[in-house]
Amino acid sequence: MTQAVRHDAMRARNLALVLGEVSARRSLTRAALAEITGLTKTTVSKLVADLIEAGLVVEAGAVRDGERGRPGVEVRISGSQVAAVGLEINVDYLSVQVVDLARTVRLRRTQAVDNRSAQPVDVIARLRDLTMQAVDEAVDSGLRVVGGVLAVPGPVDLASGTVHNAPNLGWRDVPLSSLLRLPFPVRVENEANLAALGELWFGSGLPDFLHVSGEIGIGAGLVVRGRLFRGAHGFAGELGHVVVAPDGPLCRCGGRGCLEQYAGQDALLNAARPDGAHPDSAHPDASQLHAARLGTGHPNGARHDTARPDASQPDASQPDTAQPEAARPDTARTDAFQPAGADPDTARSAQAARESAGRGIPWVLSRLEAGDERALAACERAGWALGVALCSAVNLVDPDAIVLGGIYAPLFPWIGDVVATTLTARLGQMRDTVPPVVVSRLGTEAAALGAAGQVIEQVIADPAALLHT
Amino acid sequence: MTQAVRHDAMRARNLALVLGEVSARRSLTRAALAEITGLTKTTVSKLVADLIEAGLVVEAGAVRDGERGRPGVEVRISGSQVAAVGLEINVDYLSVQVVDLARTVRLRRTQAVDNRSAQPVDVIARLRDLTMQAVDEAVDSGLRVVGGVLAVPGPVDLASGTVHNAPNLGWRDVPLSSLLRLPFPVRVENEANLAALGELWFGSGLPDFLHVSGEIGIGAGLVVRGRLFRGAHGFAGELGHVVVAPDGPLCRCGGRGCLEQYAGQDALLNAARPDGAHPDSAHPDASQLHAARLGTGHPNGARHDTARPDASQPDASQPDTAQPEAARPDTARTDAFQPAGADPDTARSAQAARESAGRGIPWVLSRLEAGDERALAACERAGWALGVALCSAVNLVDPDAIVLGGIYAPLFPWIGDVVATTLTARLGQMRDTVPPVVVSRLGTEAAALGAAGQVIEQVIADPAALLHT
Repeated sequence: MTQAVRHDAMRARNLALVLGEVSARRSLTRAALAEITGLTKTTVSKLVADLIEAGLVVEAGAVRDGERGRPGVEVRISGSQVAAVGLEINVDYLSVQVVDLARTVRLRRTQAVDNRSAQPVDVIARLRDLTMQAVDEAVDSGLRVVGGVLAVPGPVDLASGTVHNAPNLGWRDVPLSSLLRLPFPVRVENEANLAALGELWFGSGLPDFLHVSGEIGIGAGLVVRGRLFRGAHGFAGELGHVVVAPDGPLCRCGGRGCLEQYAGQDALLNAARPDGAHPDSAHPDASQLHAARLGTGHPNGARHDTARPDASQPDASQPDTAQPEAARPDTARTDAFQPAGADPDTARSAQAARESAGRGIPWVLSRLEAGDERALAACERAGWALGVALCSAVNLVDPDAIVLGGIYAPLFPWIGDVVATTLTARLGQMRDTVPPVVVSRLGTEAAALGAAGQVIEQVIADPAALLHT
Repeated sequence: MTQAVRHDAMRARNLALVLGEVSARRSLTRAALAEITGLTKTTVSKLVADLIEAGLVVEAGAVRDGERGRPGVEVRISGSQVAAVGLEINVDYLSVQVVDLARTVRLRRTQAVDNRSAQPVDVIARLRDLTMQAVDEAVDSGLRVVGGVLAVPGPVDLASGTVHNAPNLGWRDVPLSSLLRLPFPVRVENEANLAALGELWFGSGLPDFLHVSGEIGIGAGLVVRGRLFRGAHGFAGELGHVVVAPDGPLCRCGGRGCLEQYAGQDALLNAARPDGAHPDSAHPDASQLHAARLGTGHPNGARHDTARPDASQPDASQPDTAQPEAARPDTARTDAFQPAGADPDTARSAQAARESAGRGIPWVLSRLEAGDERALAACERAGWALGVALCSAVNLVDPDAIVLGGIYAPLFPWIGDVVATTLTARLGQMRDTVPPVVVSRLGTEAAALGAAGQVIEQVIADPAALLHT
């Protein structure tokens, strides 16, 4: 190692040390930084100057260090210059979140779209457009986007940015990183892992929990002492394929009786429909479930934004992604995306998916609020299955708390109790304490927020990578 | 901090640094130690002298450091002075293993005994006797036992050394550490965790795996990059209570359809018996299973060591703990332990347990070797259930390999394939690779070996604790 290389490595390490302390303690004087890091005041001043120049920290006016001290200048993370984007492709929506380095969410974009019936390249093109609009807005407000992370619902090869298999999208081995072509580096990561990190950084603030991402699929992310548990290959947390009943309905993963077949969004919607087959009534396999959906007559192929509410479909005009809060003014929503040149099968599948979307979680919520027995029973059953699968999860990974997110956030008033009751009934005799079941405050935005948060963590851990050396 | 305290802390750190390097690299000269640790040769020599005096390392004769070097003296871990004991209380055996600091197993004691029908104090007294005999033998061969770890089949509070609940022993909140009263410190730890560590340190040498401890109960220990995963409270890995069928037989844990009810030793033995009720035939609850066992007529209450083989009980005279290898000459085995003053219920339960023990795993093995269909079906079913539960485990924790230990080691030829086939059928479509299912070379000794290994790790990590300061 030459002396110059050694010097660069030491400078990089010290930049990270100083930025890490500023980030952890919110604001610090240079004198305090020198004391904490063990560096000289001169070195700290030089490092802080570099971090200011890179737009990572700012000075925040003179403060007095107690009675006897001279006025010092506080240094804190800059929230007005560097930003990260968090992206998500899920089965029925796209999401883009812009978060500044001070971890304030600056821009939220969620687009309801049926990605099951679209080709990966088309979904990626759509996400790129949505992202570039958000980036342009961020630039207009003075932010510089330095990187992104993309959340996808399936196991990901982190090194190549390829999603191996997203069964609910029907995708296999799609090299997302290279296809996305954005003007900044983008890594790809599993949606459920990122949702757990979103909960850690932007949610409850708990350090130990299992976060459950309920969507069309069901993923989980385990956080232990503030760190994500990934397993040997990064594929841990596939809660949706934990076995609830070994001879249950065939799952798209190839297994049988997976949790997803009882408590995934499709299973729940199907069970709640007045004309839907009960997912467990005859253990129908996945293709039967699919056929049952296709067989439901909506002759006009109504798109959900134009369909008129009727007795069996009262709220089809509502936005079709689950949102624990009211839709925000800056949230763009578009209709289901019809790919060009789709073959008849794809078109039929798209229609079925649109019909399913037309009876989305908001529709279920309206039925629940109206006291509809079928909807209540669907939630009871989904909550029970979730409780059974979580019982296995608690036995295996011993979380301190369980956070229900995604569609389970708005459904929490109707499923939270049955999940907790099922857990207590099965675990209470063996354990002194059964992990509490709590609701996520983030819902479907959790994964994209975690994605943006991961970029910010990376910048704080290695600021030298952003500096002109 | 005074200067003396600082000096002691630095010396303790440097002792650990030197001993750690010697342990990791097997043998090193003082010159090599100085180069690796960055300490001066004088400091290294002083530290090595202290470690020699404490009996932790030895000099191993002059070696030449290449052509030009002076002859150096190699330092290596001493295998002849300091030793650790690993202890285990399981449902139907006690085990004591003495391991020296060089990780050679010096003494093995396994005693077949029915601990279900005994009071904790009696079991502990018996274990203390067994341990003291082993310690005396170790002392006779020049070893000094510096500490022990005790493995128990249930979740443990590590700080107090209390086992919270060992349902298969019927124990609740037993303060084992304080009851055991041995002339060296003893910590208490979960059996399945220790068996996984035993596999890591004394077994296959794999760095990433899920180790399954099949006994009366079924525990698992997850090792990720050479470290045990414990979960938030240290209770991770309760594979035996992962749900196989949500409406299956009632389990002693309070749940239903837990893996243990299909693939635990009792369930397997019961299913293999010519007159045994199939555990799933009518979803009998635990008390019914118990009654079924009691109802099997053995009017003479024959102890297994005196019972004569007959057509339905051909190998009752065999030792009743599973041993993948032939019983070693130094292994003491005793009969089922009858506690003094046992009440009639306890006596009946003891008798049932003895009958069960009389038809232990060696009996099942003999039936399997004879091609007995009921025994083969019992293994098929246990392997299938194990496959279903491991499918949930792979989805949740993503291990690189699955190591089957405990009773599954001798049963491996009959269950390994069905476990692997079940996993592949359920996981193969979703994952590029399904974790291989391999057999542990350690079997029932794994936990006690892991326990001794944990003491050795502790000595290497903090040798100063053993030195006269």
